[in-house]
Amino acid sequence: MAGKSADGLRNIEAIEVTGQDKISKQEIIVAEEPLEIRLRFYSKESPISSKIAVTMRTPGYDAELATGFLFTEGIITEPNAIETVEHVPARNVLSEGNLIEVGIKKGIPVDLKKLQRNFYTSSSCGVCGKASIEAVKTSSAYPILHNTITVKGDIFYHLPDQLRNHQELFDCTGGLHAAGLFDLNGNLIVLREDIGRHNAVDKAIGYALKNLPLPLSETILLVSGRAGFEIVQKASMAGIPILAAVGAPSSLSYKLAMDAGMTLIGFLKGDRFNVYTFPGRIG
Amino acid sequence: MAGKSADGLRNIEAIEVTGQDKISKQEIIVAEEPLEIRLRFYSKESPISSKIAVTMRTPGYDAELATGFLFTEGIITEPNAIETVEHVPARNVLSEGNLIEVGIKKGIPVDLKKLQRNFYTSSSCGVCGKASIEAVKTSSAYPILHNTITVKGDIFYHLPDQLRNHQELFDCTGGLHAAGLFDLNGNLIVLREDIGRHNAVDKAIGYALKNLPLPLSETILLVSGRAGFEIVQKASMAGIPILAAVGAPSSLSYKLAMDAGMTLIGFLKGDRFNVYTFPGRIG
Repeated sequence: MAGKSADGLRNIEAIEVTGQDKISKQEIIVAEEPLEIRLRFYSKESPISSKIAVTMRTPGYDAELATGFLFTEGIITEPNAIETVEHVPARNVLSEGNLIEVGIKKGIPVDLKKLQRNFYTSSSCGVCGKASIEAVKTSSAYPILHNTITVKGDIFYHLPDQLRNHQELFDCTGGLHAAGLFDLNGNLIVLREDIGRHNAVDKAIGYALKNLPLPLSETILLVSGRAGFEIVQKASMAGIPILAAVGAPSSLSYKLAMDAGMTLIGFLKGDRFNVYTFPGRIG
Repeated sequence: MAGKSADGLRNIEAIEVTGQDKISKQEIIVAEEPLEIRLRFYSKESPISSKIAVTMRTPGYDAELATGFLFTEGIITEPNAIETVEHVPARNVLSEGNLIEVGIKKGIPVDLKKLQRNFYTSSSCGVCGKASIEAVKTSSAYPILHNTITVKGDIFYHLPDQLRNHQELFDCTGGLHAAGLFDLNGNLIVLREDIGRHNAVDKAIGYALKNLPLPLSETILLVSGRAGFEIVQKASMAGIPILAAVGAPSSLSYKLAMDAGMTLIGFLKGDRFNVYTFPGRIG
């Protein structure tokens, strides 16, 4: 499984109230800070640096988050287009460590129209920057292949435990979403945590962009919470055929999974789950 | 307590997998649809209609959501400025019932700069449309008053049960966030549910804008999940002195509560909770 997170925690003073008692104590809470994602690319031989999004995230794996976000939002479709990913000097104290720039290779076209929509994002936010309802759905460069894989039902029963056992920040803080990418035998490939549901997914997909071939047609994505619209959207951009959630789906995630040809699983707990779409992949 | 929700649910077919069994059944899932919020106002005697945000929300209480959002994002500061709130005809099937326009009275100035930032939002998203990290924090027209109220610790122990007992959609779907506004004796004033954490808060505050005097200096806001940055931000815009969460706070929500003079409570379960800021209000 891929590496460990570092600086996602903060210490503060708190007062614990129990019944009639009050006790002062140290508490560990999850870090939440804004990350500004910038894109540097060439337009008519001149380099341009453009602000794409501000997302409230848990620091750590910023490069994966930035590249994952640009990919799942359809701004870049080809991981090889990326030349550099680096934090840039802060303008002030608030943005210290919180500005990251993704540089695109010369000669690679960037969809300026998508940029002009001014992407802005936040914790659990998946449609930010879409200029209208019609633009909410982004089409994938890696469509999901139909009926080429089957996974035994039993495999799924073991996924949530693996996710939970590898969640490092959650144990301390009780406050984080997790996204895990598994192979079709249920082995964990990468787990990422974030205060933002969709940031955890972007980090996991950002890892995959660098380390796995696209599309991710032989993987299962598991999320710790609900399977909302934006999670299905992001999974579909990477061609992930099976999305499982510990929590509930929504009407729009159901519709989108139907359109995308994705198997959508919800309420995965113990030895039970619901399959909402394309049950043929569950053997 | 204020009225009931109507159309937040959808029926779909699902396959339930338990151990080795598979059973077809009907499942109720929560509705998630995009809502486009538009603002109509006067600039130099001419009416202008401007798109402000697209938010992924659970249909129901759209007017409260729209006005609550405009208020907690600082676009309108005075509820009396609102002349009309109405759904407008759809451009197509996707946006049917999903466009709402808030009309501002003639003579009321609108901060065009804030509009030009192009607010866009989504489930659980609180900083969308902020053009930069520096713009993440919006300042409140209703600052929280210091040390004027005290609430007994016991009062809090009863709030989560009240929230849960009144959650209608959650029972059916297991997939919703709730926000409840209580008086200082722990009586529920209004409860709202939504697939988006911050939408539930916007709906509750939107209700309050119409029915309670501002600032909401004698209320407690309880949220079912985490107390992230955007929840503290929104509560502070309405001058709410005490924010309690069933889940965890974050580093940024802690900082913002400190700055705003707000009492921040986390991990409220059974007869225990943590107080992170301004414990003087807990008697």
